[in-house]
Amino acid sequence: MKKVLVLGAGQLARMMDLAGSPLNMDVKAFDVRTNKVVHPLAPELIYGDLTDGINNADVITAEFEHVAHDTLAQCEASGKLLPSSQAIKIGGDRRLEKALLENCQVANAKHVIIDSKADFDKAIAALNLPIIFKSALEGYDGKGQWRLKSAEQAEQIWQEMYDFIAQSQASVPQGIVAEQMVPFERELSLVGARSTTGEIAVYPLTENHHTNGILSVSLAAPVCQSLQTQAHKVFTKLTEKLDYVGILAIEFFQVGEQLLVNEIAPRVHNSGHWTQQGTDTCQFENHLRAICGLPLGNTELNRPTAMINIIGEDSVPTDVLATPSVTMHWYEKEKRAGRKMGHINISGNTQAELAQRLNAVAQLLDPKAFPEVAHFAAQYQENQN
Amino acid sequence: MKKVLVLGAGQLARMMDLAGSPLNMDVKAFDVRTNKVVHPLAPELIYGDLTDGINNADVITAEFEHVAHDTLAQCEASGKLLPSSQAIKIGGDRRLEKALLENCQVANAKHVIIDSKADFDKAIAALNLPIIFKSALEGYDGKGQWRLKSAEQAEQIWQEMYDFIAQSQASVPQGIVAEQMVPFERELSLVGARSTTGEIAVYPLTENHHTNGILSVSLAAPVCQSLQTQAHKVFTKLTEKLDYVGILAIEFFQVGEQLLVNEIAPRVHNSGHWTQQGTDTCQFENHLRAICGLPLGNTELNRPTAMINIIGEDSVPTDVLATPSVTMHWYEKEKRAGRKMGHINISGNTQAELAQRLNAVAQLLDPKAFPEVAHFAAQYQENQN
Repeated sequence: MKKVLVLGAGQLARMMDLAGSPLNMDVKAFDVRTNKVVHPLAPELIYGDLTDGINNADVITAEFEHVAHDTLAQCEASGKLLPSSQAIKIGGDRRLEKALLENCQVANAKHVIIDSKADFDKAIAALNLPIIFKSALEGYDGKGQWRLKSAEQAEQIWQEMYDFIAQSQASVPQGIVAEQMVPFERELSLVGARSTTGEIAVYPLTENHHTNGILSVSLAAPVCQSLQTQAHKVFTKLTEKLDYVGILAIEFFQVGEQLLVNEIAPRVHNSGHWTQQGTDTCQFENHLRAICGLPLGNTELNRPTAMINIIGEDSVPTDVLATPSVTMHWYEKEKRAGRKMGHINISGNTQAELAQRLNAVAQLLDPKAFPEVAHFAAQYQENQN
Repeated sequence: MKKVLVLGAGQLARMMDLAGSPLNMDVKAFDVRTNKVVHPLAPELIYGDLTDGINNADVITAEFEHVAHDTLAQCEASGKLLPSSQAIKIGGDRRLEKALLENCQVANAKHVIIDSKADFDKAIAALNLPIIFKSALEGYDGKGQWRLKSAEQAEQIWQEMYDFIAQSQASVPQGIVAEQMVPFERELSLVGARSTTGEIAVYPLTENHHTNGILSVSLAAPVCQSLQTQAHKVFTKLTEKLDYVGILAIEFFQVGEQLLVNEIAPRVHNSGHWTQQGTDTCQFENHLRAICGLPLGNTELNRPTAMINIIGEDSVPTDVLATPSVTMHWYEKEKRAGRKMGHINISGNTQAELAQRLNAVAQLLDPKAFPEVAHFAAQYQENQN
């Protein structure tokens, strides 16, 4: 039995455990808030502190990239951490991420790193409006971001960013990355795995729709082969450069026929949750297979599949379950506004069938809690006709 | 969150928990050996005794039919037990089972109930040889069975059966059912669910292959519609008679175009493990949906799927995982000869693809541990060509 320690005790560790138990893996989670190692499905079961967790594990991985650097260092010193602390840090710092993309000559939005007011002025001069400023650390789900649409806003935005940086409690200095906003057609992401022997298996590109900066719907359906090839090449470049092991997610902007990397996540990813249903081997299982030195599982799309995030709600009408192929994935978290509480996966044998089922579900969901889902579903169905 | 107590803490309770956690169900298991309620995935977590378990549950169910009758009575008194104690007892006593089949006018092998030497002699007179004698209680996986092929064996078999009955520790008197052995073409089983509102959803018939009395391989592939209809009718008759709620499995002998019921199991069943992969909603999820009053999930076959039982082994070559669509399901049990330790599910988009993958896997497995799997796989592939 392989013993896996996950840094982080949220829904991703939970779903790793659900995927790992049938594989005869013993998955434990390190809760960074309490500094305790817990059972991912029964957090009242405590297995000691980080040192105990490291000692008892065969392999250590992370469910989030904002892990304190001293924790990463302690894990890496054990020789058990996969992916490497370098890869995790890159995912947690947009400056390092941009450096990696440049280093690998991977297309991404034009940008300037900002550490001072002088850099800020330079960014405004170098980039066309609108510009998006993103905190280098700790930004996620739309937090720590500012949009500069006209020059008059500059002073106020600088002040807000300055205060934000000053308040940072990160263990490394906070900073800002200014990016020229890209008028993209859609956001796609690629989730893939690389094994300890360098084997690579990527899932099909996924189309992502956000509401208020949070992922709302992901759609996995056959995409243009040339886009898939482009994405696969980027995945290969980045993971080989990092000698990466595990699941890595890459978010892209599609601009015409080109994919620009928006950001990378060195872990299983929300836009890959549909793989629990649409593929032979889901991202959670493939991550575990990769880090445990097992062969990767098939990542082909079996059936067009969509995922709907459940945000800030702890129930949906039970009739949702009457739609064929619907599976619920609750995270057993306390209800809180804006919190990812669970997700719904839906498949169809054809895109038309998926569209029909997606609409059936969307019509049952409270539009206040799922603001753009019905609209997306209706549009998707229209595209099938 | 629905709280479910399962009577029994084996692999079936475990797989119910794995299916129930994403549905926001809290599944606990009553270990009848220790009389403690435990976490199905972390049995070191103890939640008290049976009374505590009953008080804390919203619904109670069973993973095996040989539950002590006083335990069943205590659970039924709470008003939370589904299916009913009557249904569970019928599954655990071949005499009651036969009475139900006769009562519902469901075809089954000609039989005689034996309580005395006089009955035994009557059975031999009434039935043609060969006769199979099965203990009424506690028989499973080929245990508690005797085959009478020629009249000379009668005295010895009677003696063995007599001793067996005398040694019984069951809470109700042990007995024997004598059955005329049926020269059947194959064994099929039907797993299906009935909801609290009387909704019925059955999976496709599954072809089962046994080795030394233990299920070795199950195959779910499209079958003759008339057999499926026959089986569905039997399922409906039996479950409506019992006002059954949950998953029920029915084992059939196929004799020509007729199905004879061999036995029923009032629970999720080994021959339904393939549903974890070949359908939208597996038997474990549908059992939970049924007993919790949720709509049943789709039971159609998505892809031809096979299951291989792992018996008495605690590892298989990791290369098995390199075959597309293979999923492993280990039960985290201590290795013991003859013990069901886990199973392997394999799917194909076509039967030919499944056959090819099944052969790839079979060739990796130790023939001593999986004695007839390679033979079955080879024959199945031949049938596809």
